[in-house]
Amino acid sequence: MTTNNTLIFKKAPSGPLPTPGEHIAVESRPFDPSSPPPTGGITLSILLVSLDPFLTDRIRDPAVESWIPAYDLNGPITNDGIARVLKSDSPAYKAGDLVLADLPLAEFATFTAEEVTSRVKNVLENPHNFEDLSLFLGPLGMTGITAYSSLFEIGKPKAGETIFISSASGAVGQIVGQIAKREGLKVIGSVGSDDKLAYIVDELGFDGGFNYKKEKTKDALARLAPEGLDIYYDNVGGEQLDGAIWHIKVGARIVVCGMITQYGKPPEEWTGIKNLLLFLERRATMRSFLVWDEEFGPKYKEAHFEKMGKWLAEGSIKAKFAMTEGVENSAEGLVDLFKGRNFGKAILRVKRE
Amino acid sequence: MTTNNTLIFKKAPSGPLPTPGEHIAVESRPFDPSSPPPTGGITLSILLVSLDPFLTDRIRDPAVESWIPAYDLNGPITNDGIARVLKSDSPAYKAGDLVLADLPLAEFATFTAEEVTSRVKNVLENPHNFEDLSLFLGPLGMTGITAYSSLFEIGKPKAGETIFISSASGAVGQIVGQIAKREGLKVIGSVGSDDKLAYIVDELGFDGGFNYKKEKTKDALARLAPEGLDIYYDNVGGEQLDGAIWHIKVGARIVVCGMITQYGKPPEEWTGIKNLLLFLERRATMRSFLVWDEEFGPKYKEAHFEKMGKWLAEGSIKAKFAMTEGVENSAEGLVDLFKGRNFGKAILRVKRE
Repeated sequence: MTTNNTLIFKKAPSGPLPTPGEHIAVESRPFDPSSPPPTGGITLSILLVSLDPFLTDRIRDPAVESWIPAYDLNGPITNDGIARVLKSDSPAYKAGDLVLADLPLAEFATFTAEEVTSRVKNVLENPHNFEDLSLFLGPLGMTGITAYSSLFEIGKPKAGETIFISSASGAVGQIVGQIAKREGLKVIGSVGSDDKLAYIVDELGFDGGFNYKKEKTKDALARLAPEGLDIYYDNVGGEQLDGAIWHIKVGARIVVCGMITQYGKPPEEWTGIKNLLLFLERRATMRSFLVWDEEFGPKYKEAHFEKMGKWLAEGSIKAKFAMTEGVENSAEGLVDLFKGRNFGKAILRVKRE
Repeated sequence: MTTNNTLIFKKAPSGPLPTPGEHIAVESRPFDPSSPPPTGGITLSILLVSLDPFLTDRIRDPAVESWIPAYDLNGPITNDGIARVLKSDSPAYKAGDLVLADLPLAEFATFTAEEVTSRVKNVLENPHNFEDLSLFLGPLGMTGITAYSSLFEIGKPKAGETIFISSASGAVGQIVGQIAKREGLKVIGSVGSDDKLAYIVDELGFDGGFNYKKEKTKDALARLAPEGLDIYYDNVGGEQLDGAIWHIKVGARIVVCGMITQYGKPPEEWTGIKNLLLFLERRATMRSFLVWDEEFGPKYKEAHFEKMGKWLAEGSIKAKFAMTEGVENSAEGLVDLFKGRNFGKAILRVKRE
């Protein structure tokens, strides 16, 4: 018998953010590596698990309805990840396989036959033999296909156009910006620190950017994109959305991917967006989406995997990760992400092989 | 020599509304009915001219750029209308023809050969022999195709869905609601008086409605559409837009046709729309448009004319008009419309034949 450190949902937070140790806490749960897997099931050694902002929505009172189910109280926090199959009684997977699956933030997991069907996506395909498996949770994973599908489906980028991206060094923003550069657009990004600003301009090759803590969006865009915006890719909502609308051109598209400035606030504290008369005058389109909707992830799945793999292999798209090392640090890693303290795509590295 | 009463743009208003007699004024301009038309041109006796809210945007300082040209100072106010050809030197039209054209708010007009090409649309087609020619400036005219094209292109109505329409007794709203009823939707409308409320419910057969001066949109929709909205057809912006967003369902479409509550106000007085976090969560689409854009008027032109004609002929769509009688009352008729005092589609009847 050994132990299996696991991040557990202990209690629904009353405010927007969970507190490590109180609402989410690491517990050592028993795990016997010598016991066989369940009939038709598998035993997994977990390597990497993606940390994503939307997980805040699952760490809530299960009695409150929302777009995604709450985690079970006293059950593990789970998300997309990569694991090595240790033992298998399943015909679909064999010991030694690397799999993509819905995994607990834990060291090990045991899946029943039913869970193998519902929670394991596939054996990891790695045609370019990437050494850094984090890529499969970043540009090649959910955040990558979120960026890719929504930029093309809603943003409809055309060479010569101008795009503005908020939270531009974040998991989705950094990918949107690099795809847009590849497509021949002028790319402007906003970030929350001067380090991140240097990163998007100097390392990712964005045409310009600003630190939203130092400059109002409306003023910054007047300086950086006086020609106006064809696309605004919104990850934050609030003041930046309002400032972007001030600068949209006729026929502009606004991709609403997230509104992190508004999450967890009561309705009376939501920011009033005042510039929608300009949205009317400029015959614009604004659309929000869920990556699992038919027109997004499923529709773009193959094109995304093939093209993004090629771009990463040839080095024309780069990824920056904010790694949390070890399940024992997972609660803090998650809360740092929720607070916007990460720099790049957040991932929990459970162990190295 | 006779006179030709004509509504003239005299001076750009400093506020949102022109004052009759100061900014727009009727003047008797000379007109000689016995003189021949210009070479290749025509002489017209004007019968009806459409009065539309967007004309406020043309009654402005010509130095200010906007989506549509300003009227020339000391030139006539013009808009879509119907006229009888009195004399013609044009091969395209003959004396006696009824034509649809861009006409001055005046009793008569003389068009050069060039103006015949640029300003006359066509001889009026009237396959159903409608006696009331106002129909061609209402449901069969610009407001009708505005309603028809945007409802289908953006709203994508499906039987069993729920639509909410603001300014529901107005020129566009009354048509949108009746088409939606025909398509099998539940239709809720907002209006600004109890008379108008009785009209949309009792005469047009809407499923429900409310007087926005008496009840908040958010409260009224909780009562009238507890199932939520699939489509919101917005003519007003502001509080009603915000209240509608509160009630949209997953996958909702918001057609932004107008924002009359915001027109003519300085940006600092524009209403803050606070509920966009719900727009994000519910994966909604919001789009504004111009009827002359390729995907709207031109795309739907033939289908609209054929179907709307049929529906009007069989009585399944009705139209209500707010007639202003005589050019001498045209300035007041226009300002009443800008103030929302009309009840139905506003039209200037210059003369009866």
